[in-house]
Amino acid sequence: MVMKVYGDEMSACVARVLLCLHEKDTEFELVPVNLFACHHKLPSFLSMNPFGQVPVLQDDDLTLFESRAITAYIAEKHKDKGTDLTRHEDSKEAAIVKQWSEVEAHHFNPAISAVIHQLIVVPLQGEKSPDAAIVEENLEKLEKVLDVYEERLGKTKYLAGDSYTLADLNHVPYTYYFMKTSHAGLVNDRPKVKAWWDDLCSRPAFLKVSPGLTVIPVTN
Amino acid sequence: MVMKVYGDEMSACVARVLLCLHEKDTEFELVPVNLFACHHKLPSFLSMNPFGQVPVLQDDDLTLFESRAITAYIAEKHKDKGTDLTRHEDSKEAAIVKQWSEVEAHHFNPAISAVIHQLIVVPLQGEKSPDAAIVEENLEKLEKVLDVYEERLGKTKYLAGDSYTLADLNHVPYTYYFMKTSHAGLVNDRPKVKAWWDDLCSRPAFLKVSPGLTVIPVTN
Repeated sequence: MVMKVYGDEMSACVARVLLCLHEKDTEFELVPVNLFACHHKLPSFLSMNPFGQVPVLQDDDLTLFESRAITAYIAEKHKDKGTDLTRHEDSKEAAIVKQWSEVEAHHFNPAISAVIHQLIVVPLQGEKSPDAAIVEENLEKLEKVLDVYEERLGKTKYLAGDSYTLADLNHVPYTYYFMKTSHAGLVNDRPKVKAWWDDLCSRPAFLKVSPGLTVIPVTN
Repeated sequence: MVMKVYGDEMSACVARVLLCLHEKDTEFELVPVNLFACHHKLPSFLSMNPFGQVPVLQDDDLTLFESRAITAYIAEKHKDKGTDLTRHEDSKEAAIVKQWSEVEAHHFNPAISAVIHQLIVVPLQGEKSPDAAIVEENLEKLEKVLDVYEERLGKTKYLAGDSYTLADLNHVPYTYYFMKTSHAGLVNDRPKVKAWWDDLCSRPAFLKVSPGLTVIPVTN
């Protein structure tokens, strides 16, 4: 039976998983979850993920949540197929992939997701306006992270070395949405980061996922 | 040559790595980094970790930062020695370990580290007082996470199943500091979480690390 992914393809965390499945050229079934109707908060969904968030993966008797745990599982299960996302044949290279994956999780993601939340999610919810102070504070944090990336990407083509890995992949969906905002200059003004981003979005797997990333873009 | 860990043993993230080394009964050398003198911001340190944070691991020609990447590397390198921290013989069990490790990283840690920062780190810096609103907001988030843990730990002894794994280990240092605050009731009032915590701190590896966790405890 093919893997099932529960979620909505416009969700950045769902897109992270779909991107990984496409990199591995693996068949799957996307089971839609209506986020606007809060179907991810229904008991049937909470029994799969008690935190009430998409995506959830089902692979036979395994039910798995947390998008980065899912991408790691897919990458490991299909380690000898498609793109080598984990550099699994060399434990030290694999450790460097994990290191930059942790950088995404603990430095990049908190800053960029806060900006995306304010500029894209809050306006969708209708009642409130984006909090400019939160945006500003997190743009500053993001700039510091991107400065580190600019230096790193002057030495290696991708974050974990000269191969595309999970460490790069995990960045893609939020960066895609970020590039729709008026703050895209944070990426475009750093030549190495810009070249890296251009490379990431030229990948065939990305071109299969990006049409689904349709949360309304904003311009502020 | 034994692994070198650069850091101060009172740092929660350094303690996470030391705990892992002790679970694997592995020799190492702790190379002190004076955080109060900001030695982690010196060029020599930044050349190992451009984010200027402890710990950094050196293992021959590998230099690695990000504590959870380090624990994953140590657990993998010594997978057949000491405690099996990753359930590496079964890919689905290993995926569940990663899932709960991600829960620690994305749900538990942001909340508890914000509380610890306000109640323990801010007072150490002298000039400011803890921000009560930040403490309150993050205690609420932490309660929701612990509610999920309470239900989970009613089904399995540890987070990822009936064996102690990295998913549990990664929680230990911040929880230790949290239990020194007046909010320890969030753990103590949840019987399953309390039993889990009591179990975690009875482990021989913990008893080797806890004497180093000496950041001044506070009572507010």
